[in-house]
Amino acid sequence: MEIKVVKDIMGANEQIAQKNRQLFDRNQVFVVNVMASPGAGKTSLILETIKRLKGKVKVGVVEGDISSSLDAEAIGKEGVPVVQINTGGECHLDANMTSTALGSLPLEDIRLLLIENVGNLVCPAEFNLGEDLRVLVSSTPEGDDKPFKYPLMFHEADAVLVNKIDLLPYLKFDVDAFANTIRGINQKVKVFPLSCTTGEGVDRWVDWLLGQVKG
Amino acid sequence: MEIKVVKDIMGANEQIAQKNRQLFDRNQVFVVNVMASPGAGKTSLILETIKRLKGKVKVGVVEGDISSSLDAEAIGKEGVPVVQINTGGECHLDANMTSTALGSLPLEDIRLLLIENVGNLVCPAEFNLGEDLRVLVSSTPEGDDKPFKYPLMFHEADAVLVNKIDLLPYLKFDVDAFANTIRGINQKVKVFPLSCTTGEGVDRWVDWLLGQVKG
Repeated sequence: MEIKVVKDIMGANEQIAQKNRQLFDRNQVFVVNVMASPGAGKTSLILETIKRLKGKVKVGVVEGDISSSLDAEAIGKEGVPVVQINTGGECHLDANMTSTALGSLPLEDIRLLLIENVGNLVCPAEFNLGEDLRVLVSSTPEGDDKPFKYPLMFHEADAVLVNKIDLLPYLKFDVDAFANTIRGINQKVKVFPLSCTTGEGVDRWVDWLLGQVKG
Repeated sequence: MEIKVVKDIMGANEQIAQKNRQLFDRNQVFVVNVMASPGAGKTSLILETIKRLKGKVKVGVVEGDISSSLDAEAIGKEGVPVVQINTGGECHLDANMTSTALGSLPLEDIRLLLIENVGNLVCPAEFNLGEDLRVLVSSTPEGDDKPFKYPLMFHEADAVLVNKIDLLPYLKFDVDAFANTIRGINQKVKVFPLSCTTGEGVDRWVDWLLGQVKG
């Protein structure tokens, strides 16, 4: 019975994800699902991305958190439309929560929607939200062994942003070995080492993202 | 129906947790459930703890990971009994997985059992394994706002180990503010700032743990 329920949940999620997808297509919105461990730097990455896209593309944001609206407040200060989803204990966003949030966003005025998922390297990878791209922010202090332990997330990502490279002098973390491990799991993945603190490498990620949106 | 299934799962988990508890009591084993985000330093903390407890108390370890046995191999080198649980996608340990692992451990020879949970700041807090203590490893690079976003985990912890304090000079992280935030959620919690890299603060945690085991 438990397995059937799980199937029902995933089937229902996929149906709603397809409806989200149709809504995005009708409004010509390109959607990025940003996933990561807690504290890897999802919000900082979104903030740095928004700043660099000003005047180039209209951005909207959905902020997913179990509780609090700290991140939405930080992003609202950048002057972009933002909606906070509080999952109330749930460890991931699903298509239905996303769908509910979309009603509060001016989709017709948005070209790029960044969805910040709940901080979790496991469950978010299982739930399609209707997005175009899945981006994983993986930070250097987490260690370069993470792809071995959380393979699904690394397998599902279209791009892995290796954040906090400013801390590399103080850590045992081999960026090349990390990138090779990821490519062993996922041959199509793009890997962008960067630092949201110093700004190093962020332009390269944003240029690539812009190419994806306009492509 | 979905809610009923969740209740059934939690009820079944609690029953098995009680059986684990009885088994631990019969064998006089003190059990610690170690939880954290991916990469916060659970395995390093367990390794440093084992080293300091040599000759003082007999330790055993259960390693929970979605996949891989990297951590169990590292811990096995310290010469303590260790069992790896691969959850096969599940984002947390539950009482039943723990029960299965216990059959492979010489419980009668162990006085302290350290259980490393799956790296996840959400779901593990919901599943009682039959433990005496819940310990949360929270690392400085994750940021000092985490208690606001993952309140259940901080509420459930008996001790929070603030790991990677060696990185404080390179981060915006206020240890005192962090400790105060945690105490606002959880008045009984013990907070131990430490670094598994430099060893700073680890003795204080291990002394306290030893007091819990022998108390």
